[in-house]
Amino acid sequence: MKQRKFRLDIAYDGTRYHGWQRQKNAVTIQETIEDAMARITGEGVVVHGASRTDAGVHALGQVAHVLTSTQLGASALQRALNAVLPPDIAILCVCEVPPSFHARYSAVSKTYRYTIWNAPVRPVFERSFVYHISKPLHVDRMRRAARALLGERDFSAFATATPKDKNTVRNLFELRIEKAGPRVDIYASANGFLYNMVRAIVGTLLWIARGKMSIEDMLDALVVGDRARMGDNAPPHGLCLMRVEYER
Amino acid sequence: MKQRKFRLDIAYDGTRYHGWQRQKNAVTIQETIEDAMARITGEGVVVHGASRTDAGVHALGQVAHVLTSTQLGASALQRALNAVLPPDIAILCVCEVPPSFHARYSAVSKTYRYTIWNAPVRPVFERSFVYHISKPLHVDRMRRAARALLGERDFSAFATATPKDKNTVRNLFELRIEKAGPRVDIYASANGFLYNMVRAIVGTLLWIARGKMSIEDMLDALVVGDRARMGDNAPPHGLCLMRVEYER
Repeated sequence: MKQRKFRLDIAYDGTRYHGWQRQKNAVTIQETIEDAMARITGEGVVVHGASRTDAGVHALGQVAHVLTSTQLGASALQRALNAVLPPDIAILCVCEVPPSFHARYSAVSKTYRYTIWNAPVRPVFERSFVYHISKPLHVDRMRRAARALLGERDFSAFATATPKDKNTVRNLFELRIEKAGPRVDIYASANGFLYNMVRAIVGTLLWIARGKMSIEDMLDALVVGDRARMGDNAPPHGLCLMRVEYER
Repeated sequence: MKQRKFRLDIAYDGTRYHGWQRQKNAVTIQETIEDAMARITGEGVVVHGASRTDAGVHALGQVAHVLTSTQLGASALQRALNAVLPPDIAILCVCEVPPSFHARYSAVSKTYRYTIWNAPVRPVFERSFVYHISKPLHVDRMRRAARALLGERDFSAFATATPKDKNTVRNLFELRIEKAGPRVDIYASANGFLYNMVRAIVGTLLWIARGKMSIEDMLDALVVGDRARMGDNAPPHGLCLMRVEYER
């Protein structure tokens, strides 16, 4: 039977899930979508995601691909998936792609957003999607530090558990901070991210905002690749995968 | 012991609760805040709310008052409540008010917002706070119908279970519809609302948007007070109490 390849653009509230990647004894997003595909097509299908988001991390623009011999067209497959999936996962669009397309290996850049809610009182509606910080943050200081991180660099100082021989150079071409009322949105775009890199950068920017670290200290630690001197990882629930870009 | 009266401004995600009002065998918002007050002050305190929101209805501006002999000041009481309350309820501010203040009887107007998410795919982050409608809505038709409802009228045709001798005249001085992308926000302000009035109005506007009812039919049913001819109540989770106003 002829197989076709589909690209899925996916949004999810990661609160209930142990991250993207299928694992034993814990419900994941990959598994939930694979189960939905199996119900619809009767096939055992692997859903390859562009990013293996961690437990508690959200997505508004995750991309995945599947190889299937279903007779359904792209929009019928989308409707069927949305009908079967739980309300905290939604398929934003489905399109047929050439066999060469790979959600992960064909990606040329990704954008994450990290959201801080900086106000004395926690927000109730947004509480699962933001990191609440009561004390006023020095956002301008964070912006200066963010600018200092831009460019192609070895980001191993912002990575957790990097394998020895792994290339840790990435091009961080955007690290933009937008403030609107209590919301502080940090947008990070790069050709790729190391494990926990965005959360470590945000944690470090927060240290700088609070005067616990200077921009010079951060750059020193970056050059020597010293994770221990950087800020703690910011909590996962503020993080959201916004977009994955591909060559056209 | 001298008692003081405090006004509480409250936000909550109503998803988990059986509405505002204390009842047997079901967790309510009033009860949760009363229990928090009891833990903090050691007193059995009644928390009087301005609006008895239904199960599933949210608030960003509920107002309540409490009479207490606590020694705590307003901002200490606010901090203590927020520390004790679950994350889906937040006390936005606390201030001392004169003994004559009554959250419900002193209110001169209230504003509710009803939010529809009008897009083919459901939203994942906003799913608990919006009514998702896939098919495109004729929002201009809803706006025309909304304008036709403004003013001081007998709104019994939009009320559920009205007691026989109850005055059902209300002044609906605002019914504004804002559209921004997939979001359709319907803001309703009046000197008071009958039971389920906003949800019945929204349900009727939706009938009109879909061409199931004309504006003339709606006004006819309004004049004769015929609930049966109006639209169904829109679901509770799209509704949010935004503001309660008092004489200054």
